Amino acid sequence: MSDNCQDLEFLAGFRVVDFTQFEAGPSCTEALAWLGAEVVKIENPKTGDPARRVMPGKEPDDPWYFHMFNANKKSLTVDLKSPRGLALVKELLKKADVTIENMAPGTIERLGLGYEEVRTLNPRIIYCSIQGFGTGSPYEKGLAFDMIAQAAGGTISVTGEPDRPPVKPGVSLGDTGTGMLMAITILGAYIERQRTGQGRRLQVAMQDAMLHYMRTCFAVQAKTGKAAARRGGKSVMGANSPSGLYQCKPYGPNDWIYVMTSGANPEHWARLMKLFGREELIDDPRYNTTAVRREREAEVDAIVTEWTRKHTKEEAMTLISGVGVPAGAVFDTMELQNEPSFEKRGIMQVMEHARGPFKMPAWPVRVDGKPPRVTASPLLGEHTADVLHAWLGIGADEVAALKKEGVL
Amino acid sequence: MSDNCQDLEFLAGFRVVDFTQFEAGPSCTEALAWLGAEVVKIENPKTGDPARRVMPGKEPDDPWYFHMFNANKKSLTVDLKSPRGLALVKELLKKADVTIENMAPGTIERLGLGYEEVRTLNPRIIYCSIQGFGTGSPYEKGLAFDMIAQAAGGTISVTGEPDRPPVKPGVSLGDTGTGMLMAITILGAYIERQRTGQGRRLQVAMQDAMLHYMRTCFAVQAKTGKAAARRGGKSVMGANSPSGLYQCKPYGPNDWIYVMTSGANPEHWARLMKLFGREELIDDPRYNTTAVRREREAEVDAIVTEWTRKHTKEEAMTLISGVGVPAGAVFDTMELQNEPSFEKRGIMQVMEHARGPFKMPAWPVRVDGKPPRVTASPLLGEHTADVLHAWLGIGADEVAALKKEGVL
Repeated sequence: MSDNCQDLEFLAGFRVVDFTQFEAGPSCTEALAWLGAEVVKIENPKTGDPARRVMPGKEPDDPWYFHMFNANKKSLTVDLKSPRGLALVKELLKKADVTIENMAPGTIERLGLGYEEVRTLNPRIIYCSIQGFGTGSPYEKGLAFDMIAQAAGGTISVTGEPDRPPVKPGVSLGDTGTGMLMAITILGAYIERQRTGQGRRLQVAMQDAMLHYMRTCFAVQAKTGKAAARRGGKSVMGANSPSGLYQCKPYGPNDWIYVMTSGANPEHWARLMKLFGREELIDDPRYNTTAVRREREAEVDAIVTEWTRKHTKEEAMTLISGVGVPAGAVFDTMELQNEPSFEKRGIMQVMEHARGPFKMPAWPVRVDGKPPRVTASPLLGEHTADVLHAWLGIGADEVAALKKEGVL
Repeated sequence: MSDNCQDLEFLAGFRVVDFTQFEAGPSCTEALAWLGAEVVKIENPKTGDPARRVMPGKEPDDPWYFHMFNANKKSLTVDLKSPRGLALVKELLKKADVTIENMAPGTIERLGLGYEEVRTLNPRIIYCSIQGFGTGSPYEKGLAFDMIAQAAGGTISVTGEPDRPPVKPGVSLGDTGTGMLMAITILGAYIERQRTGQGRRLQVAMQDAMLHYMRTCFAVQAKTGKAAARRGGKSVMGANSPSGLYQCKPYGPNDWIYVMTSGANPEHWARLMKLFGREELIDDPRYNTTAVRREREAEVDAIVTEWTRKHTKEEAMTLISGVGVPAGAVFDTMELQNEPSFEKRGIMQVMEHARGPFKMPAWPVRVDGKPPRVTASPLLGEHTADVLHAWLGIGADEVAALKKEGVL
């Protein structure tokens, strides 16, 4: 075990019965698991979470995507359509602090595990649903995945080059972005419940959640009176000049650097020109104020590019940030995967899994210097017997019999 | 007051001394404020948070951007460089549950409010820092803004069209995305502290936080052995065919719809072809399986486009999602702003502010059916006297004298 991480017990004794699948729900419960909650993933005994096979290609399943969103959890298999299975899950729900689902609209109710049902079983429970579209929305019955949420929630409209079709942000903000907002609210509701003893019903729609990440774009619209537009590599908010993506050696697809100068700090321009050996431009009246540089943005961008094209993005980042100007190389996933400082700091960790080790991003917030430890994502049904014993006192013989009957 | 929202008291009695500015920090503390925490924004008496003037254009300041990230907070002005001001803030820190800063590297220490200092004053405090790059990173001294974090954290590398330069996702994920991860960890640490009485130091770097939202891209890389690539409107993960953005009437910049068919549900293709009046293609051997449709992706996309171009995106979304196939129109910020169901459901709310009403996205998670109420972002120093009285018992005369001296 490496000592760049630690077992956190922030949420010791905090029990989650987790019906979620794919990413929006699992990203939420995984955050709770990383902070020490006991998250029990309820899975179908035959196939489990479909995320186990999101990228088929290996048998018996394809763990990469699943690992990402299910580290540190337990898996309990049970057939929710069998009366005995449903009864067992209801007993688990009586012992839980939180339950959460992100099924298609109406599904959890058809299973007999809707809010009213579960609240009757356990009035203290925090009952959570992640939906595609909110109850009361014109599209409330619509199915959603990450890309649907990003289309209908606006993030696609502001991403891409001007005068070209929009593109999808490559990040799965529709899923994980939504899951994070639910996790915050769950912890808030839990803190309240410690005083009141009362459960709550929490609901978030993926479309609605996108607006939360779009607030700079809404601020731009407040200013211009027009829908926020696509600006390619530039900031939607507009920015001082120079600001944007500049090409670097050896001109591959990700050989770019983001350089940003701030309107609040006139020194940035002088520092850059000094670094570039272009001191004569510092006080040149064509370029010596924010206002004139904005008018000559293309010329200014050409001055920056002339320099950046002579350097690799790593050199350029070191040199430019070294003189106190914000700069970030465009790193791709392979460069990030192979950058040793992430692993040294526990930001990337190697999951030790029965199917082999797997290096992945960990929870990136450090607690007294160390992030929480990543432990293996569960095999399908790995913790069925353990959880039924610990939560409900059910013995190994009964578990074996229930497995034989296909209930577990 | 509208009844589509409610005053939440999840975090009643939870006190935050908030040194943050711009967005990454303020988005975090605003989430806590929406859940009922008392968040006291510490601001310079002369200018306050520079976010008050992010988009200049109106006098005396430009509230749109500031409103977004500072609703439901209090503002206390104090000159941290005056000995009396610093002493007052130290007294506030003794009464706080949480303190948080996102200043440039080294700044908070130079002010005399570094972690060791504050922990000595209040061992129960949860002390939080949001940084650009993590301690131990090769770029740990580098300044960061949203776009720098998105470059160095990988999200830009996967966004844009294949064979064209990368673009910046239009969302401010580098800021708000980071703030959300810190908010979750703060609430976890608070729950732990209720048992242990011990404070904690929490740190998150914006670059590191981006990896958390990039996990699908890392999963793709695990499969292909290559850096995740830009795929335009398509999913980075690859997807069944048809899936992607399709053009709609009247062919404006955002007249597009995302349609997604799932490999797990072969019915999606049949439902779409029936809707399009192309039943003959359902069993056509060129298109009747996931595998063959992927091989003929361009042809399949043309079949979908032929239909979508005859409809507006709203019609297409209603019709396609009506037959049980995931679909999302690409809505722009103006369409979202004007869609009445967001306001009816409390997902957008009108902030009643002294400078005029301002409609903005609220916290999108509903609690027993309603999101928390948005209240006005504070005027600079609006709550100085109130907070100093309530927290420290300081009277109005002393506050007046300190204001005269320039301390407050």
